[in-house]
Amino acid sequence: VTELYVIIDPEHCAERDPLWVAERALEGGCALLQLRSKNQPDAARLTLAQALRRLTRAHGVPLWINDRLDIALLVEADGLHLGQTDLPVVEARRLGADLRIGLSTHSLEQARAAAALGADLLGFGPMFATRSKLHPDPQVSIEELRQVIGLTESPVVAIGGISRENAALVSAARPAYVAVISAVCDAPDPALAARELRRELG
Amino acid sequence: VTELYVIIDPEHCAERDPLWVAERALEGGCALLQLRSKNQPDAARLTLAQALRRLTRAHGVPLWINDRLDIALLVEADGLHLGQTDLPVVEARRLGADLRIGLSTHSLEQARAAAALGADLLGFGPMFATRSKLHPDPQVSIEELRQVIGLTESPVVAIGGISRENAALVSAARPAYVAVISAVCDAPDPALAARELRRELG
Repeated sequence: VTELYVIIDPEHCAERDPLWVAERALEGGCALLQLRSKNQPDAARLTLAQALRRLTRAHGVPLWINDRLDIALLVEADGLHLGQTDLPVVEARRLGADLRIGLSTHSLEQARAAAALGADLLGFGPMFATRSKLHPDPQVSIEELRQVIGLTESPVVAIGGISRENAALVSAARPAYVAVISAVCDAPDPALAARELRRELG
Repeated sequence: VTELYVIIDPEHCAERDPLWVAERALEGGCALLQLRSKNQPDAARLTLAQALRRLTRAHGVPLWINDRLDIALLVEADGLHLGQTDLPVVEARRLGADLRIGLSTHSLEQARAAAALGADLLGFGPMFATRSKLHPDPQVSIEELRQVIGLTESPVVAIGGISRENAALVSAARPAYVAVISAVCDAPDPALAARELRRELG
């Protein structure tokens, strides 16, 4: 079964409190929450991460932090999600022995390299055109997603432009998770949006 | 005696290799080197920090890292320098028990708070108009610098717009360090610029 992975990005919450959005997403059945904060000052970023840590603990849902190893360690996150130009997985592991480490990949080649590195989770995308990244990588196909799922034991997260309209197409390939930002954070009712997405995941 | 503190910022190195600039600054007698990298991807930031760690070890000079606790820990920096909206000093200490922690302050009130927090080093400025910050804080006075030096046992670093022309005015107040970015990084000959600044510090 494909679970819903929601990325909380304060810049994509339609000017609402990201903590409120996160709470609604959890209500709607999101199974994993990630904090992705690219432009906040660190003090605010840490405060939000701490609040999300309390919230996800109360819901029994894992919290992952994007990019920032120090923030992940300070809030005792479950995982750290890295991109291709972020800290290398091997360096992150040196300090974060108890953290699961995920890696974003955008081609079969990158996915193979991530699997060889022993990443605990592989992001793969973008599946569709996305509103949440300024310079997205070229789109990948559902067939490539199937191949990535086949080449690793680690959970694979399909990401990029996934919405209620196309979620079933993606979950047919059986990734462990489907990740969304805008489709939940930017929705008028994030709990309803999460619930409807989950229904599409089957 | 007031020592020269050089902040290596890849964006203020006049398109030259920051490592080359750092090497020249050390040749010119800089006593403490800080890496301040605001816009590099983390992989590149870590690579530069590692190279500066090797270089400063070879010269027997302390290396400080601006903002990023994880990078400071990964390269075993001597210190981490934080701003007013960065990670709180007390949080940084939780993970970085072996790191010295510095804090930027821009008023007597902030300096008193930093001293009360037990910051291991206090930045104080800007002393003059600066080219290295987009939205600098209001300038402080030499008299305020004297007061800050008087209120703490920790070394005080005067910073902001300091150049060969005004360095002697600042060092007359006897801060532990005078810090520069542009005056060395942007100079045609960074070693000569550092040497001339040191001469002004007396």
